[in-house]
Amino acid sequence: MLAVSKRVAIALSGAHWTSLPTSFYGCLHSRQHCNKLHGHANHGSDGQKRGWNRKAGYGTAIAVFGGAVATAWAFSSADFNKLKAEAPVLIDEELKKRFGVRKPGLPEYSLDDVAKHASVDDRVWVCFNNGVYDITDFISHHPGGDKILLGAGGSVEPFWTLYAVHKRADVLELFETYRIGNLREDDVGVSTANMTDPYALEPRRHVALKPASKTPFNGEPPLSLLVEHLITPNELFFVRNHLPVPDVKENEYTLEVSGLGVRELSLSLADIKKFPRHTITAAVQCGGNRRSEMVKVRPVKGLSWGAAAISNATWTGARLSDVLRAAGLDETNTEAKHVQFEGLDLDPTSHPFGASIPLWKAVERIGEVILAYEMNGEPLPRDHGYPVRVIVPGVVGARNVKWLGRIIVSDVESDSHWQQNDYKGFAPNVDWDTVDFSKSPAIQEMPVVSAICDPGDGETVTLVDGKINVKGYAYSGGGRKIVRVDISSDGGASWREVETLESDAAEHPKAWGWTLWKTQVEVPKGTKSLDLVVKAVDSNYNTQPENFENIWNLRGVLSHAYHRISIKLK
Amino acid sequence: MLAVSKRVAIALSGAHWTSLPTSFYGCLHSRQHCNKLHGHANHGSDGQKRGWNRKAGYGTAIAVFGGAVATAWAFSSADFNKLKAEAPVLIDEELKKRFGVRKPGLPEYSLDDVAKHASVDDRVWVCFNNGVYDITDFISHHPGGDKILLGAGGSVEPFWTLYAVHKRADVLELFETYRIGNLREDDVGVSTANMTDPYALEPRRHVALKPASKTPFNGEPPLSLLVEHLITPNELFFVRNHLPVPDVKENEYTLEVSGLGVRELSLSLADIKKFPRHTITAAVQCGGNRRSEMVKVRPVKGLSWGAAAISNATWTGARLSDVLRAAGLDETNTEAKHVQFEGLDLDPTSHPFGASIPLWKAVERIGEVILAYEMNGEPLPRDHGYPVRVIVPGVVGARNVKWLGRIIVSDVESDSHWQQNDYKGFAPNVDWDTVDFSKSPAIQEMPVVSAICDPGDGETVTLVDGKINVKGYAYSGGGRKIVRVDISSDGGASWREVETLESDAAEHPKAWGWTLWKTQVEVPKGTKSLDLVVKAVDSNYNTQPENFENIWNLRGVLSHAYHRISIKLK
Repeated sequence: MLAVSKRVAIALSGAHWTSLPTSFYGCLHSRQHCNKLHGHANHGSDGQKRGWNRKAGYGTAIAVFGGAVATAWAFSSADFNKLKAEAPVLIDEELKKRFGVRKPGLPEYSLDDVAKHASVDDRVWVCFNNGVYDITDFISHHPGGDKILLGAGGSVEPFWTLYAVHKRADVLELFETYRIGNLREDDVGVSTANMTDPYALEPRRHVALKPASKTPFNGEPPLSLLVEHLITPNELFFVRNHLPVPDVKENEYTLEVSGLGVRELSLSLADIKKFPRHTITAAVQCGGNRRSEMVKVRPVKGLSWGAAAISNATWTGARLSDVLRAAGLDETNTEAKHVQFEGLDLDPTSHPFGASIPLWKAVERIGEVILAYEMNGEPLPRDHGYPVRVIVPGVVGARNVKWLGRIIVSDVESDSHWQQNDYKGFAPNVDWDTVDFSKSPAIQEMPVVSAICDPGDGETVTLVDGKINVKGYAYSGGGRKIVRVDISSDGGASWREVETLESDAAEHPKAWGWTLWKTQVEVPKGTKSLDLVVKAVDSNYNTQPENFENIWNLRGVLSHAYHRISIKLK
Repeated sequence: MLAVSKRVAIALSGAHWTSLPTSFYGCLHSRQHCNKLHGHANHGSDGQKRGWNRKAGYGTAIAVFGGAVATAWAFSSADFNKLKAEAPVLIDEELKKRFGVRKPGLPEYSLDDVAKHASVDDRVWVCFNNGVYDITDFISHHPGGDKILLGAGGSVEPFWTLYAVHKRADVLELFETYRIGNLREDDVGVSTANMTDPYALEPRRHVALKPASKTPFNGEPPLSLLVEHLITPNELFFVRNHLPVPDVKENEYTLEVSGLGVRELSLSLADIKKFPRHTITAAVQCGGNRRSEMVKVRPVKGLSWGAAAISNATWTGARLSDVLRAAGLDETNTEAKHVQFEGLDLDPTSHPFGASIPLWKAVERIGEVILAYEMNGEPLPRDHGYPVRVIVPGVVGARNVKWLGRIIVSDVESDSHWQQNDYKGFAPNVDWDTVDFSKSPAIQEMPVVSAICDPGDGETVTLVDGKINVKGYAYSGGGRKIVRVDISSDGGASWREVETLESDAAEHPKAWGWTLWKTQVEVPKGTKSLDLVVKAVDSNYNTQPENFENIWNLRGVLSHAYHRISIKLK
């Protein structure tokens, strides 16, 4: 059990969460709740094998913090459509002046009263600031599903400290519609009195990274800087975190390997470095890259990424297949179908960030999955998974688990929220009232995409010799190479091939890196504005869809339609 | 050299070509011509290794027949646009009444005169019926490039016997514009006097197969029959032949294996059957499937396929990787990058039908390439490659070489016309005046596609309980599984997911088979017509393009936009 204790210690030191009065959360930790909250259908034999870890987690971290693992929120699709996708997050002070303020005439409840309403049978109450709310009728609209119940019978503030996306005026206006009373004055502030900022130990980021959210940190570089480099410098590489960044010390680090058909291994960083070094160039792209364009069709749930939630680096590490074979992987075990990854970034219930990939990707030679400890020749920066991140080349960023703590060979996919109830695509008619996440496959390899990065949308560009320079990137998942980029300067009425493509030398089906492209567009005299459009073709001759209307999905993922910008000329 | 002789003998017995006077063709067989006609840039070290075979081929078959390997034709893109893509092929008798008739007032030439004009320097003359033509200025517009020179200085009739697509009124009208004279009366008919029909020994086909061309035979089944069967019955499986079907006898059959990093092997059918049997379900799709829809944007070159140039079967045979390893494949030989295939179907210059695939596809476990000798549990039918066809699952039909005679591990792709100058995609602005086939990759894995098969476009459908049944297929190349099919009954304004998908059990990245889908569409009372549209999503979340305009290409391949039909209701 030594390794387990060490893991929890790492997580705690990383997040710097201090103890809260357990009375507020004690009601949540019954076996019944654990089953309800984490009893996914695929919590099978493997889940049982990991039971000891889950229990250790609950016993420690829930008492410390409590919290929900949903990364964002939604109401009914009708309510949802009222919300502005890009509303700013409010700072706590402003928040508490405007929402959850004491309302004369409402009944008064104590924290103990609230704690009695911690299940659907008893109605689900929560408190915030001076307010008490009955959110029972909202539960079915929460995109994180019943994980919202983790907050039942107590304050929502510890959750919102972790997921600042809740702290928006439009969200809180809807929240206030569930208001049923005022919290007893003596109890106000008790829930957060001993709570420190789980984001206190975040690494410093380059000022060029424009945050899509600050806690957890998610940021992208300016598009024009992004395409200056075939290999993105570490400090400009977009950052997509789902939880606070753990502060992992090398001498405390252990990677555990277990599961179907393997011997259990505990590997230090030095152990991992003993495997043959393998270097690949691979782009990593967020499933929600370019979401801010899809939003224009109808609102979606998720961070409002521009087109720079993608970057390209060289990654060095041990091949996952080498590590699994060192653990004696039994390839004749036909039950083993997935490889699950757990990060050392834990949510308040001590659930790690998690993901999985199909076993073939982990073991076949053309999979090239590596346990990376170097990024562009340097130790991984903290924001990118120090000391070890799994790089699953050609696969959506969310499966490239950072701060890798555990590898589990399993018959089932990861039961994490992000594998089961996030990062999946749906037909355009599916909304938050009708969605069934079990019906769609988790995104792995992603479709072909491209973007114009320079000039930027809306920019005024100076003509040189009657021409303008246009630059951008193109990328396709699954190791497919970009074979052609077409550009239109008349809004898509006519097209021509871009002359210059730049990429590393890897070929299909191991072309994991992106392709940069550039061209000059001739502009007829007297033209005042141009509508530029780009589309790319990959080595499977996949093309992009023309518009977002027919690929719209409620999560705003897979946002890969033609990229269109308008520029002015002078 | 025994194997070589046997191979040529098979080809000859298959095509039943008899000797022509060699004087007409002798001028073509100089080293200069061979270099010009077959000197592809990639005719490298491997080409030299195969030189003995090429020479044997020239020495025999050219003297027998002469001919061009271009499967079709084109003029300048301006001329080309005048042609109707679906004009019927004329029978010989009608042809000769209308074209190449004696024209009073033109100069008269003998066959010997014509033979003196067999190169661009001397001007290129050909004759047809009673006519003599100077086609020098047409050569650069021929899609098969300078292969047209194989006919220089003689009659075009032996070529047109093989490629009946030339025998169209619109083509011949253009041909007549190159007319310069009349052929001496004694010489008329000499070129074809001893020629027999190379298609005399074609197999019988099921009457349901609607021919897109008869010589070579290309036919597709009715869409409504096609989707009756998850596994297409052999007799309904679409047929795509590029040359006459060779009449291969099992006891004469030899498969030769050679090339970089392998020992030369000669395998009989019995030898191939000694390797472990492996069965896969795989769809085979022509690169030009659904071309007849793309044609509506602008004309393209190629057979006018409907949406049924795709079928699905189980294939049993030896794994190509097993055979290559039995030949001692040296996987450390980094020069070896491709595996070339040659068929036993030879063109008149004794060039076989040829194709190649990248080496990784041949050797990696997830490639699953097999040398199939059974189709749906029976010996391969002649039309599908008896006795052995390579099945390259997930890859365009043209690489699934039938009547497999030779496997060559090489540093370069096949130099065949079909690999180099056909089956490639281009940007919509590229026309026959600007195309450079060396700039695009040969199609291998194909993008996601779908089609509505029942009801058919334009049909009148009877409502049952206010509903209609709609059925079709969806498929994606590269082993990607169909994960969703969306249907619209309002021309694409709104969409919903189809409920029922049927496929074999294979999963990504080895989902080689197609998916059949069906649904019921509810029809509002009083509706007289419906515009149905279908689109599919594969396991990479690739989607189809909405329209053909922006994926149009001069060869009409990769025709995978949304499938749209209009039906009437009663």
